[in-house]
Amino acid sequence: MIRFLLIGAGRIGKIHAENIARHPQATLACVTDADAAVAGELAQRWGARTVALDAAMTASGIDAVLIASSTDTHADWIERCAAAGKAVFCEKPLDLDMNRATSCLQTAQKAGIALYLGFNRRYDPSFMRLKQEIAAGTIGQLETLHIISRDPAPPPVEYIKRSGGLFRDMMIHDLDMARWLLGAEPVEVFARGSAVNAGIGAAGDVDTAMVMLRTADGKLCQIANSRRCAFGYDQRIEAFGSAGMARADNHTATSVAVAGTAGFTTEPALPFFLERYAAAYRLELDDFIAALGNKQVELATGDDGRRALMLADAAQRSLESGSAIVLV
Amino acid sequence: MIRFLLIGAGRIGKIHAENIARHPQATLACVTDADAAVAGELAQRWGARTVALDAAMTASGIDAVLIASSTDTHADWIERCAAAGKAVFCEKPLDLDMNRATSCLQTAQKAGIALYLGFNRRYDPSFMRLKQEIAAGTIGQLETLHIISRDPAPPPVEYIKRSGGLFRDMMIHDLDMARWLLGAEPVEVFARGSAVNAGIGAAGDVDTAMVMLRTADGKLCQIANSRRCAFGYDQRIEAFGSAGMARADNHTATSVAVAGTAGFTTEPALPFFLERYAAAYRLELDDFIAALGNKQVELATGDDGRRALMLADAAQRSLESGSAIVLV
Amino acid sequence: MIRFLLIGAGRIGKIHAENIARHPQATLACVTDADAAVAGELAQRWGARTVALDAAMTASGIDAVLIASSTDTHADWIERCAAAGKAVFCEKPLDLDMNRATSCLQTAQKAGIALYLGFNRRYDPSFMRLKQEIAAGTIGQLETLHIISRDPAPPPVEYIKRSGGLFRDMMIHDLDMARWLLGAEPVEVFARGSAVNAGIGAAGDVDTAMVMLRTADGKLCQIANSRRCAFGYDQRIEAFGSAGMARADNHTATSVAVAGTAGFTTEPALPFFLERYAAAYRLELDDFIAALGNKQVELATGDDGRRALMLADAAQRSLESGSAIVLV
Amino acid sequence: MIRFLLIGAGRIGKIHAENIARHPQATLACVTDADAAVAGELAQRWGARTVALDAAMTASGIDAVLIASSTDTHADWIERCAAAGKAVFCEKPLDLDMNRATSCLQTAQKAGIALYLGFNRRYDPSFMRLKQEIAAGTIGQLETLHIISRDPAPPPVEYIKRSGGLFRDMMIHDLDMARWLLGAEPVEVFARGSAVNAGIGAAGDVDTAMVMLRTADGKLCQIANSRRCAFGYDQRIEAFGSAGMARADNHTATSVAVAGTAGFTTEPALPFFLERYAAAYRLELDDFIAALGNKQVELATGDDGRRALMLADAAQRSLESGSAIVLV
Repeated sequence: MIRFLLIGAGRIGKIHAENIARHPQATLACVTDADAAVAGELAQRWGARTVALDAAMTASGIDAVLIASSTDTHADWIERCAAAGKAVFCEKPLDLDMNRATSCLQTAQKAGIALYLGFNRRYDPSFMRLKQEIAAGTIGQLETLHIISRDPAPPPVEYIKRSGGLFRDMMIHDLDMARWLLGAEPVEVFARGSAVNAGIGAAGDVDTAMVMLRTADGKLCQIANSRRCAFGYDQRIEAFGSAGMARADNHTATSVAVAGTAGFTTEPALPFFLERYAAAYRLELDDFIAALGNKQVELATGDDGRRALMLADAAQRSLESGSAIVLV
Repeated sequence: MIRFLLIGAGRIGKIHAENIARHPQATLACVTDADAAVAGELAQRWGARTVALDAAMTASGIDAVLIASSTDTHADWIERCAAAGKAVFCEKPLDLDMNRATSCLQTAQKAGIALYLGFNRRYDPSFMRLKQEIAAGTIGQLETLHIISRDPAPPPVEYIKRSGGLFRDMMIHDLDMARWLLGAEPVEVFARGSAVNAGIGAAGDVDTAMVMLRTADGKLCQIANSRRCAFGYDQRIEAFGSAGMARADNHTATSVAVAGTAGFTTEPALPFFLERYAAAYRLELDDFIAALGNKQVELATGDDGRRALMLADAAQRSLESGSAIVLV
Repeated sequence: MIRFLLIGAGRIGKIHAENIARHPQATLACVTDADAAVAGELAQRWGARTVALDAAMTASGIDAVLIASSTDTHADWIERCAAAGKAVFCEKPLDLDMNRATSCLQTAQKAGIALYLGFNRRYDPSFMRLKQEIAAGTIGQLETLHIISRDPAPPPVEYIKRSGGLFRDMMIHDLDMARWLLGAEPVEVFARGSAVNAGIGAAGDVDTAMVMLRTADGKLCQIANSRRCAFGYDQRIEAFGSAGMARADNHTATSVAVAGTAGFTTEPALPFFLERYAAAYRLELDDFIAALGNKQVELATGDDGRRALMLADAAQRSLESGSAIVLV
Repeated sequence: MIRFLLIGAGRIGKIHAENIARHPQATLACVTDADAAVAGELAQRWGARTVALDAAMTASGIDAVLIASSTDTHADWIERCAAAGKAVFCEKPLDLDMNRATSCLQTAQKAGIALYLGFNRRYDPSFMRLKQEIAAGTIGQLETLHIISRDPAPPPVEYIKRSGGLFRDMMIHDLDMARWLLGAEPVEVFARGSAVNAGIGAAGDVDTAMVMLRTADGKLCQIANSRRCAFGYDQRIEAFGSAGMARADNHTATSVAVAGTAGFTTEPALPFFLERYAAAYRLELDDFIAALGNKQVELATGDDGRRALMLADAAQRSLESGSAIVLV
């Protein structure tokens, strides 16, 4: 039985709390949050106790820590967990700053703690099957990868300002998927973007972006992002190879089609990540617990998190400079 | 080069005229129609000559006759062709009356002429592939067949009154498909129907119908018809067997899907038979010409036409009596 | 908080136990089963206590009873619950014998207990949306209904022998769906069937069947069943009306398509009812609990159960007699 | 009646010959080809006469010229037609060399002849509908465009060597589609490519490529090409905008799906351009003839041809330099 401390009782924290509480090999032992009332409510819902933020690391009976607090606190918490020798599952990203991410990672490595990042899409059943088909050789040699990822609606401009920009905040998921599915490191990044939302543009960010990646052995990858999509949370990947193609389409709430004079209408994509990745949140927790038992897993490691951030940084520099960025 | 006499220059006659004229092994030699002006216009379009109705059978240089005149003239024309020793391709049906159909067929058989009926759906590329998959054993042993066939809009009530009723006029196509795909004769017919259109009901016919067929070896078949369909000409068949299922879906004008807040909309079915069965009309002519050269073909014979009519008659009797009709 | 007694700790009982235990307004208080060990294991899993079969009705602190024991015990348990004044949610069917079902229902009605039957398909999200589209008039006036329902593999012949036959055991679900979606009582039933599995045939049952239903106002319905389907649990419904059509297709585990020289391959249907109707089992429990609070729900009542059985009986008689059965 | 001279009786010439011959407002008057026998055979098939190459421009009774000869002769023929004052429909491209293309275009403009290029995809019914949906505002403001275009199999390496490279030979179609659908000129081109086929790589070309385009107002476009595709001629376009998305999928030969234990398999894409763009070849001829009657059409003009070539050149330079190419 793995006893968890949950740091952060917000929207994502609540998902993790429920999945931990319902997991046959896990217990939600303890919850902490800057807002004690929020922590208390969540703890009560699942029969856990609460702990103050500054007492969290010395709480007794904790085997693993799930960090779901705000992004700017991730690195600090990871370092505290390293000092306390606790296994960590941290929501992405490590940090928005590459130097801070790197130093935090080194601290964790020196301490020898298990450290995994919540790149939830690796555990979406459709994307998992895509990975398996590629690995099984169904499509022959993988040659090109095509990722489309669109949010239903942009976050508030205040969020955008603190987000690190579209590449570090949103596309980082796709960059992790690209690395994971390509099975090789991109050595070149070219990025372009636009702001169709005036407020986002005024905040110095883009809301519409395309990136092209190239690996050393010549595999090519396209990524397209938008912060707004009329037909739901658009999450699609296509992998093309020498013997064929495998693609994962959107998921829908039902299988109903309605036909009238205008044709046949099927459902829009599921609304957002809570719906689309509900299974992924459960399955990534399964594998975190399995990883603590030394099973080989698909979870993103701290180093995966650092590399995704490196690609996001390169995309941002490409956008700003107009040049392709070559990575050593 | 097969030189054709075309009898009937209406809507269906025009399709056949064009296909004959464009066929590398056929010539449209001669056109006749009760309306000489209509015949003249069509003949001129394709470089043919016209002939009066009563001189048609003695016209010189004719190898084959394509009968596309009104239903009530089919049997008479076939018998005249039999007397003249001409090969015949006749639009369905032989006749609305079983006795007349049977005697006409006997006349043709005695004369030894080639006689084929225009059950065009056998030559629709999707239904042809369905037949091939069944023959190839892709779905194992065929167990059940499911046919949906809906016209976009009902014909005028005046047409309905002369049509012989939904089963002989419309479902006869599906009954032919059932025989052709089942590869066995139905021995039982059960039919039910309704009139959602008051005018059709007042004319003593139904516009909505279902039929169930059973073969001697226990294969079952469902047919559903409607004279009106909001989303086009709905033409679908599903064949279910011990190892799987094959189905032919509707055809559309383009492959475009449009996505918005309501979901993804694809096109309605093609409008009607001229669009859906354009290829079938060409391909059935190919096979008629091939059949004259003694190739084995999928064309419906005169006897196929008689058997489809027999099933339609049985369906009508079942509708009227409330009982299943057992065929010897 | 509704405190439940669960009767029956088998496959279906386990599903209900978990859904009750996880429901925010329900508690799994007590479990009973003819096999005490099985009951004990399930009770322990969800923190419930066990009770002997003959002490179940006098167990304290029980608000509602969920009957998931074998079919032949349903009526007895319902009558005991009626005597004890407990609300009942009973797996379908009431009983295989119409007289027994009717007397049991009368007992429950006299006692005034809430009695609902687990026709789970009413709570499948796709079929629920179909019902909503029909009610909303999206397809105009409903005219015909088309139900296909195929199990992945036949049950053991020993099960078949005790099952009451395909119509009472399997098609009863579709007959309930037909009544629910048609919104009217069928007044005529015609049925045909075959046994492609020799063992099932030898046991006097069919494994392949078609039924045609007609309502007093002329709506027509087709149902097709098979006990074996190569591509999973095939569960589809199509509702056709004056303004269009709505259909619910199968569900799949992922949205992946793989393309190669043979074309594009998408997933088979989900394996069986545990996967396809997982959400339905949760949602029907929600509504049972809501119904106890007097909310109007879509749950099948005892009378719905009796009427579905009446249609199944009529189908069996039609199969045996060869005639359509007219219901008053 | 427009009387055509056809220059070139090869594969594409044959398609045009048939479409001209069958067009109600056109006549195939004359055919010329470097291979007189090939010209003779085609002329005979459609009732045309032949003419020697050097006598073609002085042949009598010619209203328009269709150039379907090899690419390196296009510019010369156009200039001869300009001198002779003939309307020209020329297969793409004008020339592989930008300077030659430009001078040829100037000659045609000075002469005032009608000059259109055969970018056939503009007349594919699915892509035409895509254009109409964008123009109609169905997807709101167009923001991003996504083009996938894959040939079934690479041409011989000897062809590759003379082809001008993937961007000028193959992607030029997609670059024209991008301009046509974006409704704006790209001002920046970034390209990357790989050679998965060793022979193509040895010839100094790529067979797998991606391009990113940006317009002055910030619209972004991705193009992906491959010279080899296991599942047919893969031709898809997706247009994303502020209110939704419209996409054109591949076309298939039939609508059949086959289901078995592995799932549901539908057909691969049509084999190649002759099949996929059969309708487009007919429809572009319609519009060429309509354009001669001063109708506004979607046909690519000579200037469109020059601009597509300019983008292809920029892509080639980007591939070689590693930099994005900015166009004035």
